[in-house]
Amino acid sequence: MTYDIAIVGGGPAGLAAALNACRRNLRTVVIGKEEFSSKLTQAHRIDNYPGLPSVTGEELARKLREHAESNGAVFVKDEIQSIYPEEDMFNLYGREHQLQAMAVILATGITLGAEIEGEADFVGRGVSYCATCDGMFFRQKPVAMVGYIREAEAEVAFLAEVCSHVYYLPLYKNPGPVDSRVTVIEGKPVAISGNGQVERFTTTAGIWEVSGVFIERAGRPAGQLIGNLAVDAEQFIVTDALQATNIPGIFAAGDCTGKPWQIARAVGQGQVAALSAAHYLDTLKKRQTV
Amino acid sequence: MTYDIAIVGGGPAGLAAALNACRRNLRTVVIGKEEFSSKLTQAHRIDNYPGLPSVTGEELARKLREHAESNGAVFVKDEIQSIYPEEDMFNLYGREHQLQAMAVILATGITLGAEIEGEADFVGRGVSYCATCDGMFFRQKPVAMVGYIREAEAEVAFLAEVCSHVYYLPLYKNPGPVDSRVTVIEGKPVAISGNGQVERFTTTAGIWEVSGVFIERAGRPAGQLIGNLAVDAEQFIVTDALQATNIPGIFAAGDCTGKPWQIARAVGQGQVAALSAAHYLDTLKKRQTV
Repeated sequence: MTYDIAIVGGGPAGLAAALNACRRNLRTVVIGKEEFSSKLTQAHRIDNYPGLPSVTGEELARKLREHAESNGAVFVKDEIQSIYPEEDMFNLYGREHQLQAMAVILATGITLGAEIEGEADFVGRGVSYCATCDGMFFRQKPVAMVGYIREAEAEVAFLAEVCSHVYYLPLYKNPGPVDSRVTVIEGKPVAISGNGQVERFTTTAGIWEVSGVFIERAGRPAGQLIGNLAVDAEQFIVTDALQATNIPGIFAAGDCTGKPWQIARAVGQGQVAALSAAHYLDTLKKRQTV
Repeated sequence: MTYDIAIVGGGPAGLAAALNACRRNLRTVVIGKEEFSSKLTQAHRIDNYPGLPSVTGEELARKLREHAESNGAVFVKDEIQSIYPEEDMFNLYGREHQLQAMAVILATGITLGAEIEGEADFVGRGVSYCATCDGMFFRQKPVAMVGYIREAEAEVAFLAEVCSHVYYLPLYKNPGPVDSRVTVIEGKPVAISGNGQVERFTTTAGIWEVSGVFIERAGRPAGQLIGNLAVDAEQFIVTDALQATNIPGIFAAGDCTGKPWQIARAVGQGQVAALSAAHYLDTLKKRQTV
């Protein structure tokens, strides 16, 4: 069968898109790599998804999925490798499945390669990728920030206000001035370690006792799924305010469209993408009837 | 005192902005006309706010408000009449209060004038402004759509699929072709009536028995609060992808920035606006220190 809408990615953006697509009575499939978004389920606690205070990432992932599923969304566990357009339709090739849909919503998120030793082990237990989301959990505690990109400086300024001390490792050229409460470390990250929770951050310049390590990296988005898709200088998918990409019938939402990376933003964009896809399908059907 | 961020409007966009602003440790005030957003609390049931299936508008409004309040947001009940910039700062004039803030987030929503007799009485009891949100509640039931603008046609096409019958009153020039399941009525709306729930829709062309009346009107947004604020042809506030307006320090989020009108979109935009305002304040402070 040909679905009305195929959604590539089962994170917050994809699940929110699925919900609205189903509310519009469209045959909707969500293709996700994992049962639940691993980035979401690893979050120990999420305090800024409006209306659901203090949920764990796993709870939120389950709620979003159940909400979409109870409205009729079909889930397929697979990783889409490429998408090829065919007259008024798209073929999606996964590792195991091949699917067809009239419209596609890309909600592939970003891939943050875990490269520091111990980083992957302590995600949600002291390692964080979002100072706004998690900074308050480290109030009056010492933390480190590893900044692969200049955007880390604004996060460091915020952490300096909240935490008892901030060690900052800038890993790009010509870092700017930082708050006087911040110790800038000229070295490379070596390992994150501790007993269940982050306790130590080892660098080539020394070992620091910290409760948290924040990491700010450029994401590696998946704009290369389909030929000629417009992406920006950082490889994020370019969309208009209605989440349409440069290819008619292809929409995008969430982290794969760029910063800021926020769950509620991804969810809102997912819903808008679904409405825009619904509108596109209406237009398509009208054209086919003529 | 001068607040870091003043948020004008206490609906979903404003409350989500307040939550993220507080998570960034900023002194945040929300100025709302009413205790809770009336547009939100009038919704009988909201089925497409991801993660919170089947909430009433009142429940969702309370949850969003409590979430912001428990993180430190201050609420002021007032209606802001005008905003005047003063060196690196804004003065906000309400009917009763005058406030000062370093940055402002406009989340004023839209004003949908209730003009059909009985319309205001039946909001949430058969009268709806969003086919996507509420269409499914009228599955296999007869409904009417009053379209003041051409955008209503897409909504009518959706309702035709879901409802047992759709009566359509286009109130603009040269309406396009509609689905064969739709009866186009050439007349003007007169009154909406019923016993507790919508039962009848009276027009100059006849009286129709319906369970719901959908109304699609152009909104009247509040872009005129501050001089030189850029608005589009429909008077919606123009923002970039980070919710910044053309005036440094003034951000906007939610329905006042245009369509589609969706709670989750407003919430996501509110959160992004708060982060952008936080970034603006960082830059401002850095400049002041130099």
